[in-house]
Amino acid sequence: MIKSLNQAFCILPGVGSKTAQRFIYYLLEHNREGGLALAKALTGAMEQVKHCGICRTLSEATACEICDNDKRDDSQLCIVETPADIHAIEQSGIYKGKYFVLGGYLSPIDGIGVAELGLDELNKMLSKQKIAEIILATNATAEGEVTAHYISNIAKQFDVQITRIAHGIPIGGELEYADINTIAHALSGRKNYD
Amino acid sequence: MIKSLNQAFCILPGVGSKTAQRFIYYLLEHNREGGLALAKALTGAMEQVKHCGICRTLSEATACEICDNDKRDDSQLCIVETPADIHAIEQSGIYKGKYFVLGGYLSPIDGIGVAELGLDELNKMLSKQKIAEIILATNATAEGEVTAHYISNIAKQFDVQITRIAHGIPIGGELEYADINTIAHALSGRKNYD
Repeated sequence: MIKSLNQAFCILPGVGSKTAQRFIYYLLEHNREGGLALAKALTGAMEQVKHCGICRTLSEATACEICDNDKRDDSQLCIVETPADIHAIEQSGIYKGKYFVLGGYLSPIDGIGVAELGLDELNKMLSKQKIAEIILATNATAEGEVTAHYISNIAKQFDVQITRIAHGIPIGGELEYADINTIAHALSGRKNYD
Repeated sequence: MIKSLNQAFCILPGVGSKTAQRFIYYLLEHNREGGLALAKALTGAMEQVKHCGICRTLSEATACEICDNDKRDDSQLCIVETPADIHAIEQSGIYKGKYFVLGGYLSPIDGIGVAELGLDELNKMLSKQKIAEIILATNATAEGEVTAHYISNIAKQFDVQITRIAHGIPIGGELEYADINTIAHALSGRKNYD
């Protein structure tokens, strides 16, 4: 029973047999109630969390909290790869528009294409709604850049401003330790100092 | 629902909100079946795993696999702090005797005394069974040493050899990077070279 629980824990990203064992001994020796509560919360989430019908993020309701919020700016649409990206942007507190979740990046070799990323829905959204700006916030990886480029080509058919989040030295980061690509981006993307 | 699952994950040792979020998004996006299986295994283990009536390790049966195994040497008793320690020693494959699990170390300030560590049971075991050697395998910490010393005082009343596992430079370890206490132990515990 402990062995099968160990294997079950090992499906979690970054969790191996040793970490799983640590979890299990901790729960069994110190917090069985917590373990049962975790099991219950897990079952509930796995069975009841679906995707938002509008922005495709994870949500219990058919429309997520952000899509359902009238106070959010409908004219801005931020395009991200995963629901975790929304969480990260929300924590910055600076963005008040809406989101669209791709659920990954373009990768034809893995069978992830236009349909899987919901780009048809995005196309419909752009044609039906009055969106003034779409912000491409895919990751700063090769795949993220390709995906952003592809989406910008779709968006160009519409009367919409297309922007990409800025890339450069992270705040608090030291130039000395930044990689060359980041430094190149930071230099070529320099702005007038005011 | 995602928030409460996040909190439930955070009870695990070494898991904070960010790691929990990573677990949750992974399970929801890529492996809901695995999540449900984990919940089931957790519930089963929390409800059904008890302690072995003999050695006090975690076990589904009233006697654990090791205590129930006739091929294990009854005359050796290895005393460890936790069930995880048994697991570690078993993996070395060198020990064929039995175990006794304290479930912690002596710590009167936290209310962990003779009764909590099962030292009365240990006393009974030593008086009833023919045990030739007890191996003190508590951790090499101040608390582990105190606990080992206390148990050795109990065991001295009986005709039993009392040994302590060796401490020194770990195999594969470099002297240069060992801490001074370990080096002191390694020197004072030196053996004839054969």
